[in-house]
Amino acid sequence: MDLFGTAGIRGDVRTKVTPSLAMAVGRAAAEDGAEFVIGRDGRETGEAIAGAVQSGLESGGADVVRIGQVPTPALAYASRDRRGIMITASHNPPSDNGLKLFVDGTEYDRNAERRVESRIDSEPIPVEWDRWGGSTTVDVLDAYRSDIVEYTHETVGSCDDVRLAIDCGNGMASLAAPRALSELGAQVVTLNGNVDGHFPGRASKPTPESLRDLRAFVADGAFDLGIGHDGDGDRIVVVDENGGVVHEDTVLAIVAEHYVRASDASEPVVVTTPNASGRIDDRVAAAGGRTERVRLGALHEGIASAEAEGDTVVFAAEPWKHVHPAFGSWIDAVVSATVVTGLVASKGLSALREPVRERPYRKVSLDCPDDRKEPAMSLLESRLPDVFSESEVDTEYGVRLTFPDASWVLVRPSGTEPYIRIYAESDDVDALIETISGKVERAIDEAK
Amino acid sequence: MDLFGTAGIRGDVRTKVTPSLAMAVGRAAAEDGAEFVIGRDGRETGEAIAGAVQSGLESGGADVVRIGQVPTPALAYASRDRRGIMITASHNPPSDNGLKLFVDGTEYDRNAERRVESRIDSEPIPVEWDRWGGSTTVDVLDAYRSDIVEYTHETVGSCDDVRLAIDCGNGMASLAAPRALSELGAQVVTLNGNVDGHFPGRASKPTPESLRDLRAFVADGAFDLGIGHDGDGDRIVVVDENGGVVHEDTVLAIVAEHYVRASDASEPVVVTTPNASGRIDDRVAAAGGRTERVRLGALHEGIASAEAEGDTVVFAAEPWKHVHPAFGSWIDAVVSATVVTGLVASKGLSALREPVRERPYRKVSLDCPDDRKEPAMSLLESRLPDVFSESEVDTEYGVRLTFPDASWVLVRPSGTEPYIRIYAESDDVDALIETISGKVERAIDEAK
Amino acid sequence: MDLFGTAGIRGDVRTKVTPSLAMAVGRAAAEDGAEFVIGRDGRETGEAIAGAVQSGLESGGADVVRIGQVPTPALAYASRDRRGIMITASHNPPSDNGLKLFVDGTEYDRNAERRVESRIDSEPIPVEWDRWGGSTTVDVLDAYRSDIVEYTHETVGSCDDVRLAIDCGNGMASLAAPRALSELGAQVVTLNGNVDGHFPGRASKPTPESLRDLRAFVADGAFDLGIGHDGDGDRIVVVDENGGVVHEDTVLAIVAEHYVRASDASEPVVVTTPNASGRIDDRVAAAGGRTERVRLGALHEGIASAEAEGDTVVFAAEPWKHVHPAFGSWIDAVVSATVVTGLVASKGLSALREPVRERPYRKVSLDCPDDRKEPAMSLLESRLPDVFSESEVDTEYGVRLTFPDASWVLVRPSGTEPYIRIYAESDDVDALIETISGKVERAIDEAK
Amino acid sequence: MDLFGTAGIRGDVRTKVTPSLAMAVGRAAAEDGAEFVIGRDGRETGEAIAGAVQSGLESGGADVVRIGQVPTPALAYASRDRRGIMITASHNPPSDNGLKLFVDGTEYDRNAERRVESRIDSEPIPVEWDRWGGSTTVDVLDAYRSDIVEYTHETVGSCDDVRLAIDCGNGMASLAAPRALSELGAQVVTLNGNVDGHFPGRASKPTPESLRDLRAFVADGAFDLGIGHDGDGDRIVVVDENGGVVHEDTVLAIVAEHYVRASDASEPVVVTTPNASGRIDDRVAAAGGRTERVRLGALHEGIASAEAEGDTVVFAAEPWKHVHPAFGSWIDAVVSATVVTGLVASKGLSALREPVRERPYRKVSLDCPDDRKEPAMSLLESRLPDVFSESEVDTEYGVRLTFPDASWVLVRPSGTEPYIRIYAESDDVDALIETISGKVERAIDEAK
Repeated sequence: MDLFGTAGIRGDVRTKVTPSLAMAVGRAAAEDGAEFVIGRDGRETGEAIAGAVQSGLESGGADVVRIGQVPTPALAYASRDRRGIMITASHNPPSDNGLKLFVDGTEYDRNAERRVESRIDSEPIPVEWDRWGGSTTVDVLDAYRSDIVEYTHETVGSCDDVRLAIDCGNGMASLAAPRALSELGAQVVTLNGNVDGHFPGRASKPTPESLRDLRAFVADGAFDLGIGHDGDGDRIVVVDENGGVVHEDTVLAIVAEHYVRASDASEPVVVTTPNASGRIDDRVAAAGGRTERVRLGALHEGIASAEAEGDTVVFAAEPWKHVHPAFGSWIDAVVSATVVTGLVASKGLSALREPVRERPYRKVSLDCPDDRKEPAMSLLESRLPDVFSESEVDTEYGVRLTFPDASWVLVRPSGTEPYIRIYAESDDVDALIETISGKVERAIDEAK
Repeated sequence: MDLFGTAGIRGDVRTKVTPSLAMAVGRAAAEDGAEFVIGRDGRETGEAIAGAVQSGLESGGADVVRIGQVPTPALAYASRDRRGIMITASHNPPSDNGLKLFVDGTEYDRNAERRVESRIDSEPIPVEWDRWGGSTTVDVLDAYRSDIVEYTHETVGSCDDVRLAIDCGNGMASLAAPRALSELGAQVVTLNGNVDGHFPGRASKPTPESLRDLRAFVADGAFDLGIGHDGDGDRIVVVDENGGVVHEDTVLAIVAEHYVRASDASEPVVVTTPNASGRIDDRVAAAGGRTERVRLGALHEGIASAEAEGDTVVFAAEPWKHVHPAFGSWIDAVVSATVVTGLVASKGLSALREPVRERPYRKVSLDCPDDRKEPAMSLLESRLPDVFSESEVDTEYGVRLTFPDASWVLVRPSGTEPYIRIYAESDDVDALIETISGKVERAIDEAK
Repeated sequence: MDLFGTAGIRGDVRTKVTPSLAMAVGRAAAEDGAEFVIGRDGRETGEAIAGAVQSGLESGGADVVRIGQVPTPALAYASRDRRGIMITASHNPPSDNGLKLFVDGTEYDRNAERRVESRIDSEPIPVEWDRWGGSTTVDVLDAYRSDIVEYTHETVGSCDDVRLAIDCGNGMASLAAPRALSELGAQVVTLNGNVDGHFPGRASKPTPESLRDLRAFVADGAFDLGIGHDGDGDRIVVVDENGGVVHEDTVLAIVAEHYVRASDASEPVVVTTPNASGRIDDRVAAAGGRTERVRLGALHEGIASAEAEGDTVVFAAEPWKHVHPAFGSWIDAVVSATVVTGLVASKGLSALREPVRERPYRKVSLDCPDDRKEPAMSLLESRLPDVFSESEVDTEYGVRLTFPDASWVLVRPSGTEPYIRIYAESDDVDALIETISGKVERAIDEAK
Repeated sequence: MDLFGTAGIRGDVRTKVTPSLAMAVGRAAAEDGAEFVIGRDGRETGEAIAGAVQSGLESGGADVVRIGQVPTPALAYASRDRRGIMITASHNPPSDNGLKLFVDGTEYDRNAERRVESRIDSEPIPVEWDRWGGSTTVDVLDAYRSDIVEYTHETVGSCDDVRLAIDCGNGMASLAAPRALSELGAQVVTLNGNVDGHFPGRASKPTPESLRDLRAFVADGAFDLGIGHDGDGDRIVVVDENGGVVHEDTVLAIVAEHYVRASDASEPVVVTTPNASGRIDDRVAAAGGRTERVRLGALHEGIASAEAEGDTVVFAAEPWKHVHPAFGSWIDAVVSATVVTGLVASKGLSALREPVRERPYRKVSLDCPDDRKEPAMSLLESRLPDVFSESEVDTEYGVRLTFPDASWVLVRPSGTEPYIRIYAESDDVDALIETISGKVERAIDEAK
């Protein structure tokens, strides 16, 4: 069965993420380890799904530790030295739910997911009655939050005197972020901080549109900063004092620069993804570090391979989602919130943004039947480097050209739809897109 | 699917009562009502099965009240004004588990069970996410126990000065019976009163053999009485001060006589089953009451139909299993324990047994292929009454002949095995069995 | 000991409401009844205080039902048919805590409080070990909230299409009000809906100043309404679409008028307090009802005495605090929030306010030593009616004069400070205050 | 205040161990550490006392981990790396309760107890509201039990094929010992294994009289062994297959010999108390080890001082109470039960007892006013060694003479009553007692 997408299993509870599926996943996962933590977000269907996962795990011989409603990063935190399953559909609509599997603080990689899928396909061998697992219930939120407060204090100092508004979207960040910020000294006003699986306050995905209330609130009041989270606390959006959304890549650049500057390593590494902006590379380089890119959804693998080569990874992120390796190996937007606020407390948001060069950015999709994707990409891999000889070329995840002024373009086939996509960031982004589009269209054409 | 036997669903957790089945039963039952209590006995697999039932109920739109580990009668008690599911395999081995469904204190009848089965066969329509149920946890044991203490006090008085040993077989009665007896004034020593799903102390089914330790203990010590229970607290065995097991029908006769004598009704009714001894009828008649027989497993239906006719049912029982209608509409061996002990406290066990005439009893099984059962029984229904013209004949559940001296014989086909069975109780039981066996063999032979 | 103020016991946890005091109150209260519900607000010290209360109750022989963190009205709701103790200091600073005692949904009256105080003073007789109480834990929030939704539906209809912002001040209303409103169809954005005993979002008492953020938010966004609550959910402040605070007496007048119009009684009664505005009387009278006044903190006694005379009390309120008798006998600002929003949904806030005549209001305090209060008030009681012969006079709680145009003045001695206070509401309030002040000063002077 | 006796604080809940005292102890203890585990035995008053302790701890700034009903050794186990308070009166009557304090697995020593007492005498300084502690609930029984099973397996092997009866006296051992034994392979029948704070089955202290039922049961049935525990699981009594109680010193000798033989140390040390029999020294010496004696109630201090001198302590025990240092630093009768049963499994109880020489033992008390105790003991300290010049003399805790054949006599003043006591164990114990008594009486006489 092909269950897992780029962020675990997600779907409608009536047709995809049913209790039956959840039980099957729990049953299959039980063969991976002796103890699993189960957490869930605030969705209405979470308890029934969690019960099914637990039943599956226990009947497969695994013991269960229930930690109740928590942000996804708190589940990851609690999965250290054991395994964990988070019941969440992140920012999907309330009719969805989902499952994310963790081992020792890290989300399952593709191989581990494949193993689970194949076990689901082949009926598992029943476990003897006297080897079924049992369960306990534990609270991890206090420890998680106080560890964040301590980490942030050591890393960026206190958040004293910052006045901020945080919109938790009725999601799980409500249970950790406002209080952690407040304990760090910030003056915190919370929007939609009451957990509600109906997401009454706004759409769960934090976008400029869904954060309209937050932006107006920040713009109108005397706030230094606004922060928005998704339903399970792994995404962060930053809003400036005028209610403008700070571009997600700019947030990355700011945090990345901080970590690189604070590091003792000779050339600290920041891991990011191909679609992330050159402004990150700019700031990382300016601070004396280096960026490494990995495909979307594979930050952890990027960290692992960099560390295998002896590098020190100080930060790893794709847009909106940040891993703070010195805190933990998982995506943690609560830590992002406290770290960003701490940086704002010491320098002010304007000063942090000032050195980040934000070039225009565009993304286009060109029609390309699935069977022509591979030949077209082959042609482009050989041709584009020749045409743009001044650029550095990286063909690991599509074709990515980086120009001397750090502008860049990425061409890659969509994994799920009949398109080849072009992402570009450049002072004259339209011209760049136009040039590249022509070459891509020709390659598609010739690939017949 | 043909799930339910005479006492709910039971079987090995690896092949029959799996989490998947439990979830399907919960899901199907959810269509019956808005709120279900879930209880479970002490089996190792109980938590996983309960989680699956809960998940099924909630995803089917029902709310759940978890009451933890309880005797089956306490689940029935808690199911009043709503519904309930008990996770138990009663006295089956620890590798089994099972499900019993209740509505308003009464076990589901055949029709209700059939409805559940047919819903399991036809995939149910998914329920919208915002109509899934939630759960709470409640403790019912204190209320259950104190209601029993109060009821017993009013019905038979205190248990002062009775010294008894009770063997709970590491099962659920441990949580209610010893304490209730002790609160009623009895001096209680408990055997195997620590709940353990491995049933380390003895086989869970209370038989003369499995109660060997209890019997020796009572015989050797200065006890007035011994009591044995099964794994979930719906069966009672009584042991006399010499360590002898009091015949289950004698226990029925004693309790039945008490309830009839205590009743204000003109002709109080006791409901029992065809395999129950004539000694019950004796004592009920002596006390001014009347017995009614219903098939095994159908006590509640018997009560209902008697009450529909205006009768007052004061007691309903099959061997080992007693319904105390003034307390509740379910089989309750904890109440049986307190009521019997109260009777012993006021009169002594010997005095209670003295008027009960215990005739020799035998049961034999004659080979009979399934397809001959019906024609053979037809022949016997017409012939036996002619042969034993002095007997009263009841053909509702097999052929039961009652003789003028209250001795009796019952011929009925087994529901599950290729036999016709003969049960008889008579001063000369061997002669009676021999006579009847001949006639039954002939009928089987002619039924080819 | 003189413990209870006008709203239970309140004070600093280090010097007044210590665990020792809480235990003593629990111990003393235990003599009032067999079962107590204990709830608490979100204060940091709540758990320790609750543990002490529970220990006191149990060692005094009472059973305890713990219901966790709840709004005060939900504790009142849960105290029906038994008793309850709420651990809250309402909107006091976070370093305070407090205790409110309830019996059957109603706060203890003075006599009941006196009994508790006197028991604390005289060491209670220890209770035998086998009569100490036990405890259970129960969740009441779901039932409370769904009863509110049902009541509101029946009383004022749905809240469909109202877009409102609600500022819960990090207090207990967070757990009930936003969700209830949302279930009634309103579009709800919540401010400070994350429970936090530090009250980081704003001062816990809802005032025009502390609600500054809410008011700016409502004014700036496309909202129909804003609502503010205090820390434990018994006060409501309403904000209009322009961010203006609707005067608390106007809110009373609107709700009172609604209940009077909806009633079938011949002359429905609204109970209020002397400091409440004449606009309430106006609207109640216009709707065909009558107002009755009782001293501050005595709404329940007012309801009781009106009902004793055969009147139908449809609403009882002092500024910010409303009792909805058809829902329950306690002050309930969550119900106020849903009822007001329902009224706004059907008529719009402007239309509701339109008929309410808001006259200028002032309050002044004149120096008066304690020993002259009584003689001065005696003089005023006899003189003022003569001077203002066109007014109706009520001398039950001070001297209250009501003029033909419904303007009014109230003169009464402060209970705790060396002042005589004058409250007045009139088209020319300054002139009225000046006239009355002269007469009061003279009376104080002559009272030497 | 002089609170602590030799086994913590104990007394009637109405006059001594009241909730007020429990709160004061919790409040005082809070100054010792940041985190306390709270456990309790099955007494009716345990919940109220635990609530008071928790309130005291939290208001003193300590965090609390509640672990529910557990044996005292399981509380000690859970107190490792933090502190713990056990609510128990061990085998006292049900009207008593008590408190035992632990730090890192070890009971508080006298100094630590004195500190707590003095803090209670001087009103503690209130802690700021935002530094009060919170609580969580955790289950430790599963981990405790499985660690015992693992330890026993490694230390003495399995308990396969041993058939034993264990009388838990309705106390806390019920929750750990039968199941651990059963998991180790023993066939376990449990008496009074239902937890009940009324101790209905027998007096809580395990004595030959209170274990009458167990002894009869074992004698009559086919058992290899009987085991009796006290109310909180820190005492063990062993019964042989004939129902005879094995002398507590013989049990010590058997276990001590095992640990010495199993040790790799050159001269393994066993710590015991002056009142313990010479048979222990015999067996320890035979196995190549050495005994050290410390005063009653000070086993841990004995272990500490032996270890400070580089010795390896393999076992430490006073009669009925055993510390198994390789498992943990606390008295643990559950471990004693599994270890003794494991030894019986491999060798049989008779073979274990065979080498232990059990000499006649007597204890007498001679009247001696408190003010003469010291001078009398001085006289005896100088005289007795001279009279019995062949004996080894130890005057650390009274005067203890050990004779060449390992018979011995101990003379020491009672700590609480006006007696000097003589303990003696010898082939002709009466003669020895008579001789010594004469000398003691003379010394008392001369001490005027």
